[in-house]
Amino acid sequence: MTTKEALYNYTLRLADTNLILGQRLSEWTGHGPYLEEDLALTNIALDITGVAKSLYEYAEQQDNSKTADDLAYFRNERQFMNLLITEQPNGDYAKTMVRQVIMDCFDVYFYQELAKSKDETLAGIAQKSIKEVTYHLRHSSAWLVRFGDGTEESHNRAQDALNNLWQYAGELFEMNEVDEVLIKEGIAVDLSAIKSKWENHITELIAKATLQKPETTYTQTGSRKGLHTEHLGYILAEMQALPRMFPDAKW
Amino acid sequence: MTTKEALYNYTLRLADTNLILGQRLSEWTGHGPYLEEDLALTNIALDITGVAKSLYEYAEQQDNSKTADDLAYFRNERQFMNLLITEQPNGDYAKTMVRQVIMDCFDVYFYQELAKSKDETLAGIAQKSIKEVTYHLRHSSAWLVRFGDGTEESHNRAQDALNNLWQYAGELFEMNEVDEVLIKEGIAVDLSAIKSKWENHITELIAKATLQKPETTYTQTGSRKGLHTEHLGYILAEMQALPRMFPDAKW
Repeated sequence: MTTKEALYNYTLRLADTNLILGQRLSEWTGHGPYLEEDLALTNIALDITGVAKSLYEYAEQQDNSKTADDLAYFRNERQFMNLLITEQPNGDYAKTMVRQVIMDCFDVYFYQELAKSKDETLAGIAQKSIKEVTYHLRHSSAWLVRFGDGTEESHNRAQDALNNLWQYAGELFEMNEVDEVLIKEGIAVDLSAIKSKWENHITELIAKATLQKPETTYTQTGSRKGLHTEHLGYILAEMQALPRMFPDAKW
Repeated sequence: MTTKEALYNYTLRLADTNLILGQRLSEWTGHGPYLEEDLALTNIALDITGVAKSLYEYAEQQDNSKTADDLAYFRNERQFMNLLITEQPNGDYAKTMVRQVIMDCFDVYFYQELAKSKDETLAGIAQKSIKEVTYHLRHSSAWLVRFGDGTEESHNRAQDALNNLWQYAGELFEMNEVDEVLIKEGIAVDLSAIKSKWENHITELIAKATLQKPETTYTQTGSRKGLHTEHLGYILAEMQALPRMFPDAKW
């Protein structure tokens, strides 16, 4: 695998993760628990979708046979490489916030490292995102504590969500040949180097929220190869319906 | 009717119009014709919903028996006073943009006047909004021209949308006792004073987009009295479902 091929794959993988997570979060728009939170979550969804857009545009720069919109709207399930956790259903608000804590905490440490990448475009996107994801993590952490250390009902919902989503957390740190090639070039983040930071941070948060860290060591995997849970197909169907209906529309 | 009663009604009326329009626009989130436009329209929806939030909070300050969230989520169709045009379905993108041009153009002139209100809170909200709606109008105007002066198909869609929505435009300038009481106090905008500005601006835009201004003089009316088209009930059902399911939830 050439560096060029690896970089294209890496860029798409990051773009897909952000697009699908942004898409999931935007499903809450207009349905948040109250107006202020509705606006906050929509803003977070916009930040994340905005990162996806920058990354697809970078992919287009690397290989202009496909535009950013082609990449977002005209690839199928097997071509998407988003992390499995991002496609998991929103469930109740506790589940959405647990998913968000897991991702936000990862992103904070991930972008801090990616900002040092020798690839200037990736470094720039990461640098711009650090401030955003730091705010996202503050937001989702506050919710985790509010749910976990709230009523019995909210505590149980948060614990259920954590038990359910924990199996997808291991995948965040998986690496393959793409990472290998790019780490050598100083482009990609060595995920093994941020795993313990993430783990310490999450463990502390879980304790603060009076929740139990799940014992399970079973890890779902597959997204690096385009293997997904049953949920992604529905997201893509909804998201891609309009552009696919009018592929050559002059808007 | 006392000034206090009129002000509360006026504040709610403006809040409702913004909430329902913001809600309608947010239905496009994740379904825009391409990624950049999807983000742009979601941002516009956020601006508009943000104005609604400020206005509901002001209503809460005026009468703290109902919180901003109560006002947004626990009133029924007959209590909503949003302009009828805001609840009309999105239809295709041309229809959404025609609805938006009509409202954006109104809002530009409306907020310019409201910014001079003797009510400092309303004046402040209006002042902050002028910049936003000026951008919104630039955005929707560009789309109107793009559709109208585009392909035969896009031209026809824009013309159909204009013919369909024109019947709701007259209502924008309707006034009742609430306006009367507040105009005397220098609080409300005299809508008759901005009607010709709006009409000139829209007429010019329609011509630039090579569209025909509809001849109809029939005007739908009713929102000032809580009378709505069949569409509002569905919007409220969707928007209010979650808060109503868990009215006392400790989030």
